[in-house]
Amino acid sequence: MRLSIDAFLDYTLAGPADLLFALEVAQMHDQILITDRLIVGGVEPLRPIIGDESLGRRTWAYGEGRITAHYTATVDIERAPTVLHGLHADKLKDLPPLVVPYLFPSRYCEADRFETAVRREFGDEEGGDKVQAMADWIRGHLDYVPGSSDVNTTAADTYVSHSGVCRDFAHLLIAMARAAGIPARMVGAYAWQLDPPDFHAVVEVWLEGGWHLVDPTGLAPTEGIARIGVGRDATDISFLTVFGQAQFNHQQVRVELVDTDRSLGVPR
Amino acid sequence: MRLSIDAFLDYTLAGPADLLFALEVAQMHDQILITDRLIVGGVEPLRPIIGDESLGRRTWAYGEGRITAHYTATVDIERAPTVLHGLHADKLKDLPPLVVPYLFPSRYCEADRFETAVRREFGDEEGGDKVQAMADWIRGHLDYVPGSSDVNTTAADTYVSHSGVCRDFAHLLIAMARAAGIPARMVGAYAWQLDPPDFHAVVEVWLEGGWHLVDPTGLAPTEGIARIGVGRDATDISFLTVFGQAQFNHQQVRVELVDTDRSLGVPR
Amino acid sequence: MRLSIDAFLDYTLAGPADLLFALEVAQMHDQILITDRLIVGGVEPLRPIIGDESLGRRTWAYGEGRITAHYTATVDIERAPTVLHGLHADKLKDLPPLVVPYLFPSRYCEADRFETAVRREFGDEEGGDKVQAMADWIRGHLDYVPGSSDVNTTAADTYVSHSGVCRDFAHLLIAMARAAGIPARMVGAYAWQLDPPDFHAVVEVWLEGGWHLVDPTGLAPTEGIARIGVGRDATDISFLTVFGQAQFNHQQVRVELVDTDRSLGVPR
Amino acid sequence: MRLSIDAFLDYTLAGPADLLFALEVAQMHDQILITDRLIVGGVEPLRPIIGDESLGRRTWAYGEGRITAHYTATVDIERAPTVLHGLHADKLKDLPPLVVPYLFPSRYCEADRFETAVRREFGDEEGGDKVQAMADWIRGHLDYVPGSSDVNTTAADTYVSHSGVCRDFAHLLIAMARAAGIPARMVGAYAWQLDPPDFHAVVEVWLEGGWHLVDPTGLAPTEGIARIGVGRDATDISFLTVFGQAQFNHQQVRVELVDTDRSLGVPR
Repeated sequence: MRLSIDAFLDYTLAGPADLLFALEVAQMHDQILITDRLIVGGVEPLRPIIGDESLGRRTWAYGEGRITAHYTATVDIERAPTVLHGLHADKLKDLPPLVVPYLFPSRYCEADRFETAVRREFGDEEGGDKVQAMADWIRGHLDYVPGSSDVNTTAADTYVSHSGVCRDFAHLLIAMARAAGIPARMVGAYAWQLDPPDFHAVVEVWLEGGWHLVDPTGLAPTEGIARIGVGRDATDISFLTVFGQAQFNHQQVRVELVDTDRSLGVPR
Repeated sequence: MRLSIDAFLDYTLAGPADLLFALEVAQMHDQILITDRLIVGGVEPLRPIIGDESLGRRTWAYGEGRITAHYTATVDIERAPTVLHGLHADKLKDLPPLVVPYLFPSRYCEADRFETAVRREFGDEEGGDKVQAMADWIRGHLDYVPGSSDVNTTAADTYVSHSGVCRDFAHLLIAMARAAGIPARMVGAYAWQLDPPDFHAVVEVWLEGGWHLVDPTGLAPTEGIARIGVGRDATDISFLTVFGQAQFNHQQVRVELVDTDRSLGVPR
Repeated sequence: MRLSIDAFLDYTLAGPADLLFALEVAQMHDQILITDRLIVGGVEPLRPIIGDESLGRRTWAYGEGRITAHYTATVDIERAPTVLHGLHADKLKDLPPLVVPYLFPSRYCEADRFETAVRREFGDEEGGDKVQAMADWIRGHLDYVPGSSDVNTTAADTYVSHSGVCRDFAHLLIAMARAAGIPARMVGAYAWQLDPPDFHAVVEVWLEGGWHLVDPTGLAPTEGIARIGVGRDATDISFLTVFGQAQFNHQQVRVELVDTDRSLGVPR
Repeated sequence: MRLSIDAFLDYTLAGPADLLFALEVAQMHDQILITDRLIVGGVEPLRPIIGDESLGRRTWAYGEGRITAHYTATVDIERAPTVLHGLHADKLKDLPPLVVPYLFPSRYCEADRFETAVRREFGDEEGGDKVQAMADWIRGHLDYVPGSSDVNTTAADTYVSHSGVCRDFAHLLIAMARAAGIPARMVGAYAWQLDPPDFHAVVEVWLEGGWHLVDPTGLAPTEGIARIGVGRDATDISFLTVFGQAQFNHQQVRVELVDTDRSLGVPR
């Protein structure tokens, strides 16, 4: 499917500050970026991070006062719905080197603290079925409540509070998967059919030699996800990291299906 | 039943320090203290806390170097097994003033963080049945693992780790009950049939106008519990609080059923 | 000095809920309550907690939907400014029974975690001078930033973040004092000259046989503090505890000096 | 200087488990590995992680029961003592892509929580002088106490407790540096003159276009550090990660200066 993406941010900085934007859709085998543009107001010339795009595209900016960012993109997503059922987990020693770090705990995903819980709750399942059982548990036990968490909220906090937003759902699934020895990472994304529209956070788990997208919130179909970047948890994929104080003014995300026939001017 | 209790502590203090002992069995309507004796070696004369015995007996000591405490007691327990089924929860406005604080979060029982979890997991039950469901959940989901927790471990930590010892099981039940608006407090006790023998920590919940003993570990029958004291959580009922540094050497607790006929010299 | 107090709360409950108000000024030796009135709209008849007023007055209510509370009082404060310098700390064994619990850690004041920090930072001071040094340290190192903390924020969090509001400043001083073996408790209060006017939270420390008021924020003179109640930390003294979900609409506190000559109609 | 390294581990696994060893000295510009050998008993053939050695060498093993590992190496360290004074911090936009992640918080280094503390305490310093001031503060304020922390202890915990071991000292310096916008990472190492001998954890900070070794414990000279690997924090550089339960039996590390003349048989 072809998606049209439009994101707008409006912040005010308390003083001069460095900004790291992760707004730009990544070029990947299952998502073909057709065209995009990032315009940032109130800053010095942008400086993309070049040479390590495997985890997504990021761009430095430096400015002060009011900062606006406007990103537009057209991207073709060519991805079947994720089916976890029956996928086996790879042996740890067979993991590619760059996958190994996604076994470890991170700032928001204290996998080490979930080992007994995961063994007791999901010990009878294996591989993809285990991950699916975890995602089902999360969807069944947590309330999705905007405002119920903040930047300090970790997977353990979410497990106790039974509430959160997409990032919290993702952190909990990642912590559980890693606690079971299954590599898992966080994905920052634009998501088709997410309601209300916003930036989205989902999960990738490593099974049978590849990464598989899972949305533990169930709010958006994985075949309509346009990845921005991946990382260990929210620290790595924040769409805007401000090295200083900033005040939020306004933000808007729009993701729409493009009628590719019509867009190409082909009569039907 | 008549119990004979024998407890021995052996610690070494790093320097001179105040010590607060909570070793002595409380005189209460359902446990009649027949006789007891506390001997502490290595300290200045003991100073019992007088005038607030409602929560249990406590004794100050001051000393340095090696400290030993030896407590012996005989106590008659006259208490039927706790039956929570069918007990209703009191309306909050009808709670006695001294019960109100046991509704609030405390150091180790962050009741405020469990409200959604408790509503979602136990929302269909009421009163005593709700508390019983919580205790059953704890017994069914947690591993009892000596050494798996420490003095910083809170109810939220235990809920995540799914493991702990008696104090952790008690803290979690207390946090859950309070989160549901049911007053709950911690009980430090000697327990008949606890194996291996040790100090024990159990819970009291307030239902239908009175406190009811519950042991979420299921390791000891409540009709064989001899309470030392009660409090908000482990901070209030520690059998030994050292205001300084101490090294543990040795500790031993023995609780035995006394054959009351024979002890009175009555031929059978 | 005579103070006129006027407090107004406006909340909306998500469903029927019990409410515990702690709005009413306590009658105490250094603050003489002349007259007061609490009117609560949207609830069943109020039910004061009777029989344990030593920690302050509290009132139960039960209602749903929009809830307003209006409290007015006139109180004479007869209290000299607190002077901590030179006050000695009591020996622990000489503490009155009801003071002992204020040595222990509580939900928001993890005194047990501060022992080394307090020994290293304030180990050279004693008694009142030590408490004064702690209060000075807090005032000198923390930013007072409305919105920088929430209901989960503990003394340890505040010590790390170096920012907070009055309750956080109070929690940190309490944790530090207890870590040094000095009983400390939290005071909910109305405060003259607090700017902007609001409910205030300050601290009482036990030195030389009595409680002494300290405001670690330095925002209001202790001789203009009208205590509502005292407790282990914010859990005990919250001016409004809702056993359910509530949405804040509006709140206003006014504390004014009354010209007692004129109020009595005495010509000058 | 030439170092001879000898490390021996002895553990017992509760069941069959994957093990990840990070014991082997890394080949780097300032440390030339002459020869080394790793022998692991009780496991299937070792499987080194090949293809991402930039962060250090790691080796998978799989076994059960008693596991022993013996590592020996000879390495030449060619490194001048670190001098932080006067080094400037790079602009964020000039950081190499692979350095950027070391700006972010991680499992044990909650940099985001230290921003105000770092600004207030070290705001007058810049670059290398700021890092030196942080290291001096840590060395001056913390007690080095074996056993005072565990695998859950984070930089924030250490900042509160004012005590820890080398990993805690390192985590705190990393958190502080990142909070000031200076990339910092953890280094697992063998250290000459560390007393008692053990694995060591130190820090690298990114200043003026390169990584600089700092030991916030001050226990070992940086010119005698043989790096094993680097990572975001202890999660990445643990010398042994067990994916299962293990019991510690014994461990020994020996690092000795080799008299290179004599070792080469050159008469003097």
